[in-house]
Amino acid sequence: MSGPLHQPINWKSILSSIREGDQRVLARAISWIENETEGYRELLQSLENFIASQIVGITGPPGAGKSSLVDLLIEQWVAAGKKIAVLCVDPSSPFHFGALLGDRIRMSKWYNHPDVFIRSMASRGTLGGLNPQIIEVTDLLRAASFDMIIVETVGVGQNEIGIAGLADTTVLVLVPETGDDIQAMKSGLLEIADIFVVNKSDRPGADRFYRFLESMNSFNNNEPKQEAIIVKTSATEKIGIEELSAKILAHLNASKDSAKKSLLLAERAYQLIVHDKMQHIDKRILAENIRVQMDDPHFNLYRFIASY
Amino acid sequence: MSGPLHQPINWKSILSSIREGDQRVLARAISWIENETEGYRELLQSLENFIASQIVGITGPPGAGKSSLVDLLIEQWVAAGKKIAVLCVDPSSPFHFGALLGDRIRMSKWYNHPDVFIRSMASRGTLGGLNPQIIEVTDLLRAASFDMIIVETVGVGQNEIGIAGLADTTVLVLVPETGDDIQAMKSGLLEIADIFVVNKSDRPGADRFYRFLESMNSFNNNEPKQEAIIVKTSATEKIGIEELSAKILAHLNASKDSAKKSLLLAERAYQLIVHDKMQHIDKRILAENIRVQMDDPHFNLYRFIASY
Repeated sequence: MSGPLHQPINWKSILSSIREGDQRVLARAISWIENETEGYRELLQSLENFIASQIVGITGPPGAGKSSLVDLLIEQWVAAGKKIAVLCVDPSSPFHFGALLGDRIRMSKWYNHPDVFIRSMASRGTLGGLNPQIIEVTDLLRAASFDMIIVETVGVGQNEIGIAGLADTTVLVLVPETGDDIQAMKSGLLEIADIFVVNKSDRPGADRFYRFLESMNSFNNNEPKQEAIIVKTSATEKIGIEELSAKILAHLNASKDSAKKSLLLAERAYQLIVHDKMQHIDKRILAENIRVQMDDPHFNLYRFIASY
Repeated sequence: MSGPLHQPINWKSILSSIREGDQRVLARAISWIENETEGYRELLQSLENFIASQIVGITGPPGAGKSSLVDLLIEQWVAAGKKIAVLCVDPSSPFHFGALLGDRIRMSKWYNHPDVFIRSMASRGTLGGLNPQIIEVTDLLRAASFDMIIVETVGVGQNEIGIAGLADTTVLVLVPETGDDIQAMKSGLLEIADIFVVNKSDRPGADRFYRFLESMNSFNNNEPKQEAIIVKTSATEKIGIEELSAKILAHLNASKDSAKKSLLLAERAYQLIVHDKMQHIDKRILAENIRVQMDDPHFNLYRFIASY
């Protein structure tokens, strides 16, 4: 296989390698998408016959134990014969590096497992808090025949809108201590959750927090009206994991909210169309063209742009 | 003159009314730009032979006395026979309503003066903190033969990037009490200033704050290296106003930073080109088209957008 600098990339053969489970090729193809390597759009256009991959979004505040839960869910689902892809959306802020390193170590035993693929993506760009290219990457993973795609994001009340559109089932991981802060969280964070997890449920206040979430449920404005599921877990004690897994699978097989998803896809489609139509326009050249003309008293910006 | 709903607007006659100083027509034309009334782009394209209007940006934190200083500068410059336009960029936040109402009252004596035109614009959209349409409005004001265009914005460390590109001279109004906070201000706010004003300079700490600004000057990274001018004023006591006016006029006649301005114009040109090219694409229709197709396992977003 040749790289982009050598000879034309044979997308068809790449796609068939990916379908056959070649994770090295998959990882490179994701990089081509991220770098917009010439021809990557052809690869995306050649994706066919997606399998019915199910996307599970796992979100919640830092330190709630999302990565530990993902680790245990992978264990459950791999044992059941499923192929799992995990996308970790990392905040770009260097502030989070320590925590992230810990997360990676927590999941590291899966790095060389043939049925598990783990990839980090920076949360740059804007698509409801997601890296916009996550749409293309999840489409590639669907074509790569993963049964489940887990997308883990840090949700702190601002970055959770996109995940609800992307995921078939959105799991919000909280801890008893969140109780005091939850009123301050944007209501959006609560409304996007299909499943609430009270993790670290062996800690004091867990039952009170569980009942609080139950009472919140009555105020849920989701349409169609459907009460969120609440599950108590303890990742460290491995309590509640089977129940959580079962609740996620049941929810995945029940309903799909195609309205939210179509809005997210439309937003991304719009971004890509803008990108395509504006590709030939380089802002620096635009600025330079304007700079050399702007001292002319006859220079008119609106006649100038009419020529583009 | 007929409105947009009756018969085609005669942009040439509107432009000549504006040139002759008809403020009622000018105010309506600005509204047409803001509302993107059909044909407004023709009006903009027909702007010719701009006079060399000078744009003065006045920025600074809320309560620093910007509007009182603008009021006194108008007095100076109207007395010198100049035609003055003032654009007040209002934060969209309702939090600021009280202060703004006060500002408007402060300048109200100029509302019916034939040589003064005052207009508020909401700071919606994004062009370095400015309403993007301010580019079109200032171009119209230049064509309307105003000698000076004053753009007053609330700068709190985030909304001040655009003003430095738009204005020929940027005045940052501070008060002695700002001293304690200035370290916390983004350095960008200090770097954009051509002239620092220490207003309310009759208050304690004014001299210390003045010397602090002098020492900051040594760290100024502006290119070409040019030390900022520092002026002490008291709007309520009418102290330092003539000096401030003279310093502004001297700076206006000295150098123009065409690089910053061309970057801002290029950004706006880019936005307008995107707008023009995407005009036929309605995001809601896009979402609906995607929604009806997305359950088809052969649906491919990238083939779908290739048809746009």
